[in-house]
Amino acid sequence: PGTKLPKVGTTIFTVMSQLAAEHGAVNLGQGFPDFDVPARLVESLGRAMRAGHNQYAPMTGVATLREAIADKTLSLYGHRPDPEAEVTVTSGATEAIFNAVHALVRAGDEVVVLDPAYDCYEPAIDLAGARAVHVPLDPATFAPDWARVRAAIGPKTRMLIVNTPHNPSGATLTADDMAELAAIVQDTGVWLVSDEVYEHIVFDGARHESALRYPALRERAFVVSSFGKTYHCTGWKVGYCIAPPGLSLEFRKVHQYNVFCTFAPAQHAFAEMLRKEPGHHLGLGDFYQAKRDAFREQLEATRLRPLPVPGGYFQLVDYSAVSDLSDVEFCRWLTIEHGVASIPLSPFYETPPAGQRLARLCFAKAQPTLDAAIERLARL
Amino acid sequence: PGTKLPKVGTTIFTVMSQLAAEHGAVNLGQGFPDFDVPARLVESLGRAMRAGHNQYAPMTGVATLREAIADKTLSLYGHRPDPEAEVTVTSGATEAIFNAVHALVRAGDEVVVLDPAYDCYEPAIDLAGARAVHVPLDPATFAPDWARVRAAIGPKTRMLIVNTPHNPSGATLTADDMAELAAIVQDTGVWLVSDEVYEHIVFDGARHESALRYPALRERAFVVSSFGKTYHCTGWKVGYCIAPPGLSLEFRKVHQYNVFCTFAPAQHAFAEMLRKEPGHHLGLGDFYQAKRDAFREQLEATRLRPLPVPGGYFQLVDYSAVSDLSDVEFCRWLTIEHGVASIPLSPFYETPPAGQRLARLCFAKAQPTLDAAIERLARL
Ligand SMILES: CSCCC(=O)C(=O)O
Ligand SMILES: CSCCC(=O)C(=O)O
Repeated sequence: PGTKLPKVGTTIFTVMSQLAAEHGAVNLGQGFPDFDVPARLVESLGRAMRAGHNQYAPMTGVATLREAIADKTLSLYGHRPDPEAEVTVTSGATEAIFNAVHALVRAGDEVVVLDPAYDCYEPAIDLAGARAVHVPLDPATFAPDWARVRAAIGPKTRMLIVNTPHNPSGATLTADDMAELAAIVQDTGVWLVSDEVYEHIVFDGARHESALRYPALRERAFVVSSFGKTYHCTGWKVGYCIAPPGLSLEFRKVHQYNVFCTFAPAQHAFAEMLRKEPGHHLGLGDFYQAKRDAFREQLEATRLRPLPVPGGYFQLVDYSAVSDLSDVEFCRWLTIEHGVASIPLSPFYETPPAGQRLARLCFAKAQPTLDAAIERLARL
Repeated sequence: PGTKLPKVGTTIFTVMSQLAAEHGAVNLGQGFPDFDVPARLVESLGRAMRAGHNQYAPMTGVATLREAIADKTLSLYGHRPDPEAEVTVTSGATEAIFNAVHALVRAGDEVVVLDPAYDCYEPAIDLAGARAVHVPLDPATFAPDWARVRAAIGPKTRMLIVNTPHNPSGATLTADDMAELAAIVQDTGVWLVSDEVYEHIVFDGARHESALRYPALRERAFVVSSFGKTYHCTGWKVGYCIAPPGLSLEFRKVHQYNVFCTFAPAQHAFAEMLRKEPGHHLGLGDFYQAKRDAFREQLEATRLRPLPVPGGYFQLVDYSAVSDLSDVEFCRWLTIEHGVASIPLSPFYETPPAGQRLARLCFAKAQPTLDAAIERLARL
């Protein structure tokens, strides 16, 4: 039938997970925890089903969940979005990003993304008939060069997508970054998508710089998050989008005819979780910081050089002391020959930096899994 | 921000459900049962969560579910799709229809829909930058006029969307219709979306004419169904699309970057259900036929004239003996003044037939609900 997405193959996450399964490799590739969702959520979801919450949820999301999200947002970021007009529950953050793009971006528009960019941004832009304009992050620190971002914005630019904590690098935006971003958004009138799914996983005492903290940003932004990373249930696919009423209106038009509504019992379970344990996410940074620190210490036994990890649950490693292979070849070789699956970085770029030798390892894993991986990596 | 979907307001289903709630009306509007999902599915979903199926499902769907869908398709329609290459699990049929359109339809294309058309088709087409071309069904029987369909297909036509059993009318396509449809698809080379979510709800001994029965159709079709209507769980949002490998490949590119994957525990629950009770759906036609028959008999006590219902769970009624109001006004009035919510037909049309006085009543309700509605309708 011809293809509208000639650049799209199967995602690198699926490719590497399949390769890991074929070769019995320890899978530190695709980002998901190998420990489980809190038992309270499982019980609560069971209760919601038994209470009969099995028919369509409201299109915008279960009201108690939208209110709980608004309350949580206030306590975290000092701003309470209107749950009626500004909070929409989605089938994961991926749907939210897709909807945000399709709500506003038209054929012929341009959307600026920062490379390396999470892999769902560009196909959404392509399907909207628009063009992704790629601005590279600093190859050493993964910090944005705001002058380059500004220069990339032209008359056709409709939207800018940022991501903090950043996948794949773990880099986080600072308060200074947010000021630069706010100035750009205000001066140029672009709309913003802020992908903040790792919002609770920031380390070393830093605070998460949500776009929701800044009036100049939140009035032009779709802020996207998800419960999958926060509650160790990436397969439950409940996310949400916070945006001002006018943006939410257009967002909901897409959501309404895209999936209409999201799995109802899980929405009730998350509403109860947020009400009964509103501070649950507060421990998440420490939980993952301990994992990060232990894993980095273990990596000292290997010839992989770990890069700094300010947030998220991925560790980038430079493998140039081990191999001259390209990252895609290296990651295949590492999976097949050494039994550890990782994710190469080049698929996240339009133009990967020449000579970059980086792989991404997910440390959202129980210690025995990480031990098994390190044992294998130490043999490199 | 301007709107890409100027014609879209809140769906008529949400509008009428809200109005019903405000006025304490018996809600026969939005199509969902007021009885519950089988207990076996609730238990099975609980077990799947406790077994740890809480991380990302495979992008294409849980393998055992895709195999069970393939087996069921073989037993029903004499053709077994390849579960690896041809079956994709989606977040409801709505997502499947959205993906099918976005997989193939480009800006400037045309897509033929038959009016009255289920309300998610046109916004999906609009968002793809294409144009819906509306061909009316027969205003009395809701049968397609295939000569008109053929005449509506021109060089820009990329796709045709059909729906059997049909929502809102309940009309079903016959074997003769399928032969006409096959000839059109073959002669013109358009792609087909066949929305068959009510496939198990056909009455009076008729058989469901799935596009999957016909090689000439299934080789050019996305056949869409869902578990929500079959297992009384419209809020679980698990659907699927069966399409040949080339079409499934393009479909999956959209799915992968739209929602990526669907709530994992429910996929395991449906896989178990299909394996352990493969004939469960066989009773569904009789179950709803009994409801239809009882409801139609009850309607004799009212001045509403019921139209024939060959399939689905909606009863169209002609209210011209009661009121001269337009259908939208009538349905508002009926909700507010008489406490029964229904769905007007005109929102399903580009150009509603002049003087048509039809409302849609959902009979997927427990008998006390239908009794309460009839008591109120008898007073009209
Ligand atoms: C949607 S599968 C990929 C999961 C993820 O976010 C990642 O590995 O980066
Ligand atoms: C997606 S809400 C509408 C449910 C339905 O299919 C109908 O009422 O026709």
